[in-house]
Amino acid sequence: MVFQPGTTRRQLLTMIGLAAGSSALYQAMTGIAHAAESDFAGPPNLSGAKPGASVLVLGAGLAGMLAAYELRNAGYKVQILEYQNRAGGRNWSLRGGDSYTELGGATQNVQFAPGNYLNPGPWRIPYHHRALLHYTKQFGIALEPFVQVNYNALLHNSAAYGGKPQRYRAVAADFQGHVAELLAKSINQKHLDQPATKADRDAIIDALRGWGGLNDQLAYAKGDESANFRGYAKDPSGGVNGAPVPSDILPRDELIRSGLWHALAANANYEMQTTLFQPVGGMDQIGKGFAKQVQDLIDYNAKVTKITQDDKGVTVTYEDHNNGGAVKQAQADFAVVTIPLSVLSQIEIQVSPAKQAAIQAVPYATSLKIGLEFKRRFWEEDEGIFGGISYTDQEISTIAYPNHGYQSGGKAVLLGAYSFGGKAYRIAGLPPAQRIRAALDQGAALHPQYRAEFDNGVAVAWNRVPWSLGCCAIWTEQTRKDHYQNLVSLDGRIVLAGEHASYVGCWQEGALLSSLDAVTRLHQRAVAG
Amino acid sequence: MVFQPGTTRRQLLTMIGLAAGSSALYQAMTGIAHAAESDFAGPPNLSGAKPGASVLVLGAGLAGMLAAYELRNAGYKVQILEYQNRAGGRNWSLRGGDSYTELGGATQNVQFAPGNYLNPGPWRIPYHHRALLHYTKQFGIALEPFVQVNYNALLHNSAAYGGKPQRYRAVAADFQGHVAELLAKSINQKHLDQPATKADRDAIIDALRGWGGLNDQLAYAKGDESANFRGYAKDPSGGVNGAPVPSDILPRDELIRSGLWHALAANANYEMQTTLFQPVGGMDQIGKGFAKQVQDLIDYNAKVTKITQDDKGVTVTYEDHNNGGAVKQAQADFAVVTIPLSVLSQIEIQVSPAKQAAIQAVPYATSLKIGLEFKRRFWEEDEGIFGGISYTDQEISTIAYPNHGYQSGGKAVLLGAYSFGGKAYRIAGLPPAQRIRAALDQGAALHPQYRAEFDNGVAVAWNRVPWSLGCCAIWTEQTRKDHYQNLVSLDGRIVLAGEHASYVGCWQEGALLSSLDAVTRLHQRAVAG
Repeated sequence: MVFQPGTTRRQLLTMIGLAAGSSALYQAMTGIAHAAESDFAGPPNLSGAKPGASVLVLGAGLAGMLAAYELRNAGYKVQILEYQNRAGGRNWSLRGGDSYTELGGATQNVQFAPGNYLNPGPWRIPYHHRALLHYTKQFGIALEPFVQVNYNALLHNSAAYGGKPQRYRAVAADFQGHVAELLAKSINQKHLDQPATKADRDAIIDALRGWGGLNDQLAYAKGDESANFRGYAKDPSGGVNGAPVPSDILPRDELIRSGLWHALAANANYEMQTTLFQPVGGMDQIGKGFAKQVQDLIDYNAKVTKITQDDKGVTVTYEDHNNGGAVKQAQADFAVVTIPLSVLSQIEIQVSPAKQAAIQAVPYATSLKIGLEFKRRFWEEDEGIFGGISYTDQEISTIAYPNHGYQSGGKAVLLGAYSFGGKAYRIAGLPPAQRIRAALDQGAALHPQYRAEFDNGVAVAWNRVPWSLGCCAIWTEQTRKDHYQNLVSLDGRIVLAGEHASYVGCWQEGALLSSLDAVTRLHQRAVAG
Repeated sequence: MVFQPGTTRRQLLTMIGLAAGSSALYQAMTGIAHAAESDFAGPPNLSGAKPGASVLVLGAGLAGMLAAYELRNAGYKVQILEYQNRAGGRNWSLRGGDSYTELGGATQNVQFAPGNYLNPGPWRIPYHHRALLHYTKQFGIALEPFVQVNYNALLHNSAAYGGKPQRYRAVAADFQGHVAELLAKSINQKHLDQPATKADRDAIIDALRGWGGLNDQLAYAKGDESANFRGYAKDPSGGVNGAPVPSDILPRDELIRSGLWHALAANANYEMQTTLFQPVGGMDQIGKGFAKQVQDLIDYNAKVTKITQDDKGVTVTYEDHNNGGAVKQAQADFAVVTIPLSVLSQIEIQVSPAKQAAIQAVPYATSLKIGLEFKRRFWEEDEGIFGGISYTDQEISTIAYPNHGYQSGGKAVLLGAYSFGGKAYRIAGLPPAQRIRAALDQGAALHPQYRAEFDNGVAVAWNRVPWSLGCCAIWTEQTRKDHYQNLVSLDGRIVLAGEHASYVGCWQEGALLSSLDAVTRLHQRAVAG
């Protein structure tokens, strides 16, 4: 996952509510730049486990289930305690027939048609998230492409172009074209002292002409060259009236001021680069695939209330809600704790003051995701938008179209809002039905068909999700420096794992890589005695 | 389809062997810029056909089958004559068990594993090819995304970087970064008289910083900002050693000289913009879907030798190779002729001298496609390349990875060569086994695994395809001016259709749009009497 993709780091900092001077800003920016990618060298080597050694795993999200899977394979006796009545954690899909009750008590009964779903949490998998790809392959979970860049999708700024959305392809072509023209002219007029040689100057001007769609006068202007990138006023066709007509370009300064170019930068980000994937049938297919491997180890509806340790082992106290909330204890030689810090910080845990401080130090972002089911795929039928994402400066931030079932009939679900941090606060604070109403009102600025075609919806505000109290951990450069190593360190017989214990924050890959590192160190400790 | 996507128009002109002055070059370039896209307003209105009116359709490619489908629906009596023993024409997939004999007599028996295929002809469908999308939907043909841009694929120039391929993401990030730095500095130093206002100058510098990955000094340099786009020397990870390490950038002038940026421009072309599709199961699923609609109208193995007309109707003479080549005649009120010009120009046809001249005036390009089956998906397993395309300056031009069956086991087929025109000539002139050998030798420069993992292959050189004698029609601005309207005009009772009779040349969409225009005009003529 990650911060709203159409967002600059600066906007993001505003979103996450940082009120700080420029130095703190810079540090936060640097920290956020790191919240990204994977470094997977294969499954862990856990050979030589002592017979009978045992591990308690707290939480049956991806981090917990992977820890259990690898430790059991290595010979450990493993038990998982899970608060919910399902495995997967933030790996989650909502479907017709599902019921979801948030903090505050509001319950939503999902009414989507069979086969339709919303992924409230993670929804895409970059090609470089190799741990996740490794285990999806190993567990036989089929993947299909996630369309990140759709040149026919919309970019919308309420304050630009009279509120009229622009096509991604027009913004992309025109931004590049204007940049290329300015630079080509500057170099051509020898305003720059580099490139130093004439051959290099000629080479870059040639490149700018080809890449930017400039004409023979090095101008980016209406004509065949620009239409070749941005599209036509009348597309080429067959027969008598086949000849195409070029389209008008968006003037430079207004385009720059519109900020619509942000989407270009976001899509070029390492995290958003194609090839991206989604599981066939919904993101929860991954959680279910992991759960299939460790199903027999999981105790559901177990609410952990206390975690203690001594030189013999770890004791976890929990309420067993399969048995009326009876207080029970589980014991093992070691524990892997994958409970989100937002929840763990409210549980008594016997670790060092430094780790206690780390657990308390990292705030959780909120995010908002709203699934809207429509009577038909009007975005495909009326507008030629197949999958991918439109962006808007409104609170909903994002409209994402389903990347499966293209051109099929019947109802379909699109993501009617995906916003993060400050952008999500107001709508997240509304009752679910009003969140959906807000998404419909704002989305209609991009798609007027919303009003006639809407059928039903579901809205997840992560600050109200009872078992995570937020979307994911937000580190800054300063908290990384002060607390990160303390958070991930092995503390006696306890180690923490999860996306919060990684530099791939807010992504499933971070949970897996953190888990692999945690169990490797735990195992080394266990073998050492 | 289209000209090699990693190719500038200038290179293309060299490829197609144009030896001409700069004016002719410019005209050809303009013509090629048009070879592109769709203009579909819905199925044709063919109401009011006269009872008993009849049409002969020559050729059961997409143009011919669509003409037959719409004319029969409108009430016409339709017969299709097809030279081959299958429908689809250049819409074609080769699979294990298929046998293909080219001009010159060489036969290839395809040995691909079940489910694997090569599309020798068209292989992708842009989102704006709305006629093709309309009929695939109507005929129930499932589509899946074609991955055009893969940031982890390779860009290779034998003469740059010591022949070492570079990652697409590094070239994309570094090209943008260097361009952004040069322009930001030029504007910052007021070397340009535009943008005129300080606010606009600040806005564009801010945009260049965000879009280009510049640091606070407006430099594109090794660091978090550039790594955020181009990737890391050590990716971020989980646990103790989670912190990432930025990567070195490719210096500017060498990068520009390498020409590797051509791929960026090609992928931004209207024709190559995402969302792109391919049919689930191979491109021939479209030909088969069309054929299902008109199967009862097709006479296979019918070689047309003569086409005449008078004021009563059209007579077509053909050899019936279902019956030992017996000479037969078919008659109808009208005829839609979809035979490629490369073949039609060798058949006696009774049309005006102007149309005769047009039929003779348009040369056909060759292209080369080679399918290589490997024992495993080493590109996925070893290199994290999932679908998409690598480009090289070698004759093979293209290596394209399968956009389906991601992470599956067993053998897999990649496209080991896709080159066009002059780039294809030498290899196309070799016997099939030597073509495959050349593709293996050249491909090994990008993927050393080729040698150990190769299993079998098939090579299609379009100049040797007996029923098309080339890949598609190549128009120039001059031939458009002299011959296009004469080619597409209704000539008595005969009209031509196919990609050659469109401005969407070399694409299936061109064949469909041409066909719709042709049958509409034919119908108007028929109704008028």
